[in-house]
Amino acid sequence: MSHAAATSSEPATPSVPFRVRERVRWEDVDLAGIMRYSAFPRFHDVAEAELFRAAGITALTVLERLGLWLPRRVLHIEYHVPALFDAELEARLWIAAIGGTSLTLNGELWSADGATRHASWYLVLVCVDAKSGAKRPVPDELAGALAPFRWSIEGSAIAEP
Amino acid sequence: MSHAAATSSEPATPSVPFRVRERVRWEDVDLAGIMRYSAFPRFHDVAEAELFRAAGITALTVLERLGLWLPRRVLHIEYHVPALFDAELEARLWIAAIGGTSLTLNGELWSADGATRHASWYLVLVCVDAKSGAKRPVPDELAGALAPFRWSIEGSAIAEP
Amino acid sequence: MSHAAATSSEPATPSVPFRVRERVRWEDVDLAGIMRYSAFPRFHDVAEAELFRAAGITALTVLERLGLWLPRRVLHIEYHVPALFDAELEARLWIAAIGGTSLTLNGELWSADGATRHASWYLVLVCVDAKSGAKRPVPDELAGALAPFRWSIEGSAIAEP
Amino acid sequence: MSHAAATSSEPATPSVPFRVRERVRWEDVDLAGIMRYSAFPRFHDVAEAELFRAAGITALTVLERLGLWLPRRVLHIEYHVPALFDAELEARLWIAAIGGTSLTLNGELWSADGATRHASWYLVLVCVDAKSGAKRPVPDELAGALAPFRWSIEGSAIAEP
Repeated sequence: MSHAAATSSEPATPSVPFRVRERVRWEDVDLAGIMRYSAFPRFHDVAEAELFRAAGITALTVLERLGLWLPRRVLHIEYHVPALFDAELEARLWIAAIGGTSLTLNGELWSADGATRHASWYLVLVCVDAKSGAKRPVPDELAGALAPFRWSIEGSAIAEP
Repeated sequence: MSHAAATSSEPATPSVPFRVRERVRWEDVDLAGIMRYSAFPRFHDVAEAELFRAAGITALTVLERLGLWLPRRVLHIEYHVPALFDAELEARLWIAAIGGTSLTLNGELWSADGATRHASWYLVLVCVDAKSGAKRPVPDELAGALAPFRWSIEGSAIAEP
Repeated sequence: MSHAAATSSEPATPSVPFRVRERVRWEDVDLAGIMRYSAFPRFHDVAEAELFRAAGITALTVLERLGLWLPRRVLHIEYHVPALFDAELEARLWIAAIGGTSLTLNGELWSADGATRHASWYLVLVCVDAKSGAKRPVPDELAGALAPFRWSIEGSAIAEP
Repeated sequence: MSHAAATSSEPATPSVPFRVRERVRWEDVDLAGIMRYSAFPRFHDVAEAELFRAAGITALTVLERLGLWLPRRVLHIEYHVPALFDAELEARLWIAAIGGTSLTLNGELWSADGATRHASWYLVLVCVDAKSGAKRPVPDELAGALAPFRWSIEGSAIAEP
């Protein structure tokens, strides 16, 4: 999560997205010998949990202290190259947008050696009140904690939400 | 769940166990082309939910009205014959024992045509207080609802191959 | 694409999409008490397997006789309303497009009573050679078998709420 | 338990079993807020894959070079203490027995701090011919590679198979 230079108090855009390693396990693979399409969310979930942990947030602290849930609204996955059993993969995840009541996460799944991009995806979460289910603005505390994990695949300045 | 004759007010032991049909789905199968060992609990869960529904019970009514959870204490599965993708299976499930604070469920997974027994298992559940987690006696209401689903593999006229 | 009456030997567009019932099971539900976003592909898989069976096709016959695999290229899911544990749902699935080397399936997940639409999705499959992995045209046999399951959400007399 | 130095060419019994860390993920947790009973095999699978990797074996090398599969014959899990979402756990796994045509793995799932034992289990695998499915003796190559991972929870001398 390092960056070349931060010349202001604004969070600097990192030069690389958040990354975690995870292997393709037996239950992820189908009889075609490749990771089944429905196993990819597992890799997102690992990356999301670790990104939130790095940001000082867990699902339960969000729930309990802020009184919020973050249900998912849209999932979009593009599968580029099959991943094989036991392969070590690197999930890259970043905050692509923080909207009024939503968060957009972008991810990519790469081989651990960085040579092959297996998949790309985005996931839109919405902030809702844990009791009523009504939409809620993304709290400043949450937006602030996630700000260091904003990134743009082009590496350019991030467009404000 | 009918029975030939009930000559007293005791629930009669049924002549066959509770049965549900379920297919081996894509996510159940591994790269060896057979149902992976970790997919079998899914078949138990289908059978258990339907047995409890037939008994007029759901996990949530148990939780909410009786103030109980039924966490699992022991799972034991024996795998006899591999099951293949898309095969239609029949899960047979019965109440093998109702103890002071526990329930023992027994199950078998058969091919839908009754020719092949793929697996046998038992699962021990314990009654605990939903808030404290302390063990609780099996309530009469629960024991009574489940009584018609008691069965004994030895006590049946069914000849198992 | 669709029409009210079929005056030729072309397969008529059905007036409703293919439908299967499936319940939200214990393993589908998360600690928020709703079906987790990553459980929805399981419902697609049930619907796809049954649609293919109704069309006289199974994954293995496609593989073995036609020498093809149908890996997934894109999955897009929109989550509208949370589904709860034990709810009986109806997955509706149809062939939205048959391209040169791809198939697009569209689906919706409804409550069994038809009152609530929980989710909508599309899934793009590509035809590839089972050995080389190279793209292959959708075989006439496959396209023909799937033709009766083409449907258009706009072209139907069904009023969607 | 075992010994600090091996005074012969026999593989020394390790003083601790093989260990891997893994977190309770979102999809592992049920609506009771605890890891569901059917998620535990996932932890075994992570530990088994890593133990086999440490032994220089992968499922595919076993299959391809030795012409074997290792299907599971018996799974027995005892659940002691519930594990919560996001908890870091330590799976401990060891070879408890190498029989004529079978392997018995024993495992325990602990909190990462070693304070709580969440579960214990054993899993019996059998060696079968990958083509015919007939039982095969455990090859010396496999038994030798796994020997350093034999362990006994009692700390006694390991009984030879």
